[in-house]
Amino acid sequence: MREAIGIDIGGTFIKAAAIDGEGRVLRRAKAPTGVEGGARLVEERICAAVDGLRSPATAAAGIGVPGMVRWPEGVVAQSPNIPPWRDYPAAAALGARIGLPVTVDNDANMAALGESWTGGGRGVASFMLVTLGTGIGAGIVLEGRLWHGDTGRAGELGHVVVDPGGAACGCGGRGCVERYASASGMRRLAAEAGLALDVPELLALAGAGDERARAVFAEAGRRLGLALAAWFNLMDVRCVVVGGGALPALEAMEPSLRGALGEAVYGVSPRELAVVEATLGEDAGIIGCARAAFLIEETGPG
Amino acid sequence: MREAIGIDIGGTFIKAAAIDGEGRVLRRAKAPTGVEGGARLVEERICAAVDGLRSPATAAAGIGVPGMVRWPEGVVAQSPNIPPWRDYPAAAALGARIGLPVTVDNDANMAALGESWTGGGRGVASFMLVTLGTGIGAGIVLEGRLWHGDTGRAGELGHVVVDPGGAACGCGGRGCVERYASASGMRRLAAEAGLALDVPELLALAGAGDERARAVFAEAGRRLGLALAAWFNLMDVRCVVVGGGALPALEAMEPSLRGALGEAVYGVSPRELAVVEATLGEDAGIIGCARAAFLIEETGPG
Repeated sequence: MREAIGIDIGGTFIKAAAIDGEGRVLRRAKAPTGVEGGARLVEERICAAVDGLRSPATAAAGIGVPGMVRWPEGVVAQSPNIPPWRDYPAAAALGARIGLPVTVDNDANMAALGESWTGGGRGVASFMLVTLGTGIGAGIVLEGRLWHGDTGRAGELGHVVVDPGGAACGCGGRGCVERYASASGMRRLAAEAGLALDVPELLALAGAGDERARAVFAEAGRRLGLALAAWFNLMDVRCVVVGGGALPALEAMEPSLRGALGEAVYGVSPRELAVVEATLGEDAGIIGCARAAFLIEETGPG
Repeated sequence: MREAIGIDIGGTFIKAAAIDGEGRVLRRAKAPTGVEGGARLVEERICAAVDGLRSPATAAAGIGVPGMVRWPEGVVAQSPNIPPWRDYPAAAALGARIGLPVTVDNDANMAALGESWTGGGRGVASFMLVTLGTGIGAGIVLEGRLWHGDTGRAGELGHVVVDPGGAACGCGGRGCVERYASASGMRRLAAEAGLALDVPELLALAGAGDERARAVFAEAGRRLGLALAAWFNLMDVRCVVVGGGALPALEAMEPSLRGALGEAVYGVSPRELAVVEATLGEDAGIIGCARAAFLIEETGPG
């Protein structure tokens, strides 16, 4: 059976795997990204990971990058976590070195493709994958294909304003949903309530009945619900898959999130709106990268 | 040259026209909708309009309905302005009577298709048509095709929340953008400022330098800008075409609308975002209906 190599590049580590045509992880590799050595060292590390994983069955490679990627060209416009990659033609440069077809996309898009293939979005034609991490990202699948938008920036759910004039955000705006419902947003809300705790600690405290901790998740859920309501109202795409490191907080957010959907989604019962958990965990990215690789190998980019 | 008949059904009047393959209006008809006579009378009126407009060149008919339409079946789930049409199989019933292929869709979608074909969205692959009327509606074109969503309800821009906990809306929610930036929303803001005026009167007053009238358009523009920012952030579709009866207010809203986009759209200069005027006026609906009719005649529904 043919294989693809999926490569998920973070600011600290490169995670890679050889994956078969049914989305099963066959072999794994992990290496420091080597950002301190510039674009050339990052390239070396990626090539070394691919060399360790490839086999005669390897058909193509897919690479997920945290940041702004021009697609389908696979040019990394900029990546806050990989500063040397600025207007860097990743697909062309790495394809030439590796000697395989290579496709490059934003990491949230790759994760959405992974969840669509074998995860929480399997069998769902259209959905949005929401990643609750340090920030909030999203990848959009419409009728089975990734939606990139006009310039590859689709899915900036994290900066949808849910509290006009509210908390200042690093983007220069105010009241962006990621200031409330991301891991850092929940830590911020907790700090305002006098709790210097991270999400797992807050969850433990809320589980023990602490009202201040519960209020953090209630507010996070209400704000996230407002942002998702904008999505449901605009697109009528009734499935949202939630993943990311702060996913364990979803259950604690759920009552207020559902309440916000009930108030803010027009003409639809919240029961008709699916907000479900991602199932691939940290492997969503590498699996989606492999899926993207199989797709370009079958049909070419685009 | 082949012709199609476009039929725009309102609560009071049916407007119809025979339209050629380049979107030109050849002949027009208008008749009272006859809602008081029930579904049967509305059908009679539509058939009479079609009979007056058809020619040997007539290929198909398209009908736009204000309300919730299941698509591609063309079943009107409900229409506040045409109460007798509840779970009414409009496409099938009217197709059988007229003896032509008939397609039925929501009126905002039909207007979007019209503006896409020969109006403000011509040559733009993806855009959202925003209709500023008594309420705020929207139709979404993605890669040249209407986006209907999972159940035909896509484009409920009017109920995107831009002021959490704000003005109560008929939908049961609070702070929906149409409570601020529609014709009725602007009248409401004016009344709060002690001005019992409609939009043209407010525009005249603002033009004469009245600060209270100017403040109404500033607030309407700011709120509309926040709703459009959610669209731009989520979809990265950088063109919005604005039409509807309150379109003349767009210019007065523009500075605050642009300001809100600048604050709330992530990573994009507002200069890269197009918010342009629709060009077909009241004909957008009938022209879009004709376009939809040509499309089903060419390719079948869907």
